[in-house]
This record gives sequence, C-alpha cells and structure tokens, in this order.
Amino acid sequence: MKRALVLFAHGARASSWAAPFERLRDLTQGRLPECAVSLAFLELMEPRLPQHVAALAAAGVLDVTVVPVFLGQGGHLLRDLPALIDGLRAAHPDLNIKVAGAVGEDPQVLAAMADYCVNALDREAKLAGSA
Amino acid sequence: MKRALVLFAHGARASSWAAPFERLRDLTQGRLPECAVSLAFLELMEPRLPQHVAALAAAGVLDVTVVPVFLGQGGHLLRDLPALIDGLRAAHPDLNIKVAGAVGEDPQVLAAMADYCVNALDREAKLAGSA
Repeated sequence: MKRALVLFAHGARASSWAAPFERLRDLTQGRLPECAVSLAFLELMEPRLPQHVAALAAAGVLDVTVVPVFLGQGGHLLRDLPALIDGLRAAHPDLNIKVAGAVGEDPQVLAAMADYCVNALDREAKLAGSA
Repeated sequence: MKRALVLFAHGARASSWAAPFERLRDLTQGRLPECAVSLAFLELMEPRLPQHVAALAAAGVLDVTVVPVFLGQGGHLLRDLPALIDGLRAAHPDLNIKVAGAVGEDPQVLAAMADYCVNALDREAKLAGSA
C-alpha cells in the first residue's frame, strides 16, 4: 500500500489503556481497505511515531496522514508532535506527511461525547426511578 | 440544583487545551437545564475534583455523577480517580456519588472518532485530486 493513516496517541503504562485505540484502528481500517491504518504512540507504548513512520517509508509508503487521537491541544500537540513531524520530514524527504487536527476538536466527536454525558446522568435517573 | 454532572478531565499546562472540554460542558449543560454541569481536573488546571465536589456539597447538591472525559482507562482512571472518589465519599458521606465509564470507551464516541479519521484521509485525497 502506498498510503498510510497513522492514529497517534499518548500511550500509558497500563496495557488496558490501548483497547479503545485498537478498536478505533480496527473500525477505521474496516472503512479504508486501500490504506494501511495503524497506531503509534508518543511515549510509554510501542511503536513510537518516528520508528513507525520510518518502517512505513521503508515498506514503500509514499503518503502518511497522522491523526492525533487526543482530546485537547496541549503541549503534546503544540510542541511535541510538530517537533516529531519536523524530524520525520528531514529524515524522509520523499515521504508526503500530513497532520490532521486533534480528534477531540471535531464537532461530531464532541456531539457524541455530549450524548454520552447526557446519557450518563439519565442512566442514574432511570436507576433511581426504578429503585 | 440538587444534582450535578462533573466532567472530569486530565488538565494541561496550555490553557488552549481546555477549549474542547469547555465546549463539551456547554453542549451538555444546554441539554440538561435542570442539572449543574461543570468541569474538574486531575492536575495542572483548576478546579481540582476534591475541592470542586466539596463546593458542590456545600452548595446543597445531593447527587453528583462524575464522567471521566478520558480516551482510555490508564492509571489515572484505574488508580487516581478511584482514590479521589474514596476520599470524597469519606469526606461527604451524605453525598451520592456515581462514576461513569470513560467517554472514549463509548461505542458512539468511537464511531464518531472513526468517521473523523476516515474523513481526514478523504480530505487529503480530495486536495490531491483537485491540485
């Protein structure tokens, strides 16, 4: 495959943390059969972004789109990710690298999260009503 | 108001980080006019969860539902939040405190994030096609 979509997440010590990111990868891959969809992490989990993108380039990928699976734009997206991308562009000048905005900034994602928050309260009300 | 919904987030040094959480709070509050919806943070931002829940209890709130606005279940949700909740229950025995699952574990939130990831690649394809 010549195109790759890399879901970039923070990483954590607890292996359980990766589960929703793996489901997100699988959901996305299911809808993009012509594109290699994978996960890469900032820290604490493997693969890290630089090594992962280097492996994609070595495998013949020409275009990489990085989607930050972060809720907000903090230091990791404002400083760490741009520095990583600068390093990748310098190391792989023939690779076309694009970076999307943070997943959590998307209005549809925010709307789904608001639904979840509203339902969290409704569930409590229903439980209290049935008690 | 006797009921409160607290959206619990990590916090960050960059003030810009809070923007989507503030939008989420506003979206949720708009749909729950009978409930006080607010944000509280684990670290780096104010208010912190213990002080915030203490203020809600002092204001006469009887029921608090805490929704972790986190993508995955790492150490913050597996250890830090339960410890905070235990402390709050001990400090406020008359307050009914419920804790929801992480927002990022919700299938509808994951579906919206997958849409965003798919569209991130489509946007690049459309831009390349129009160039």
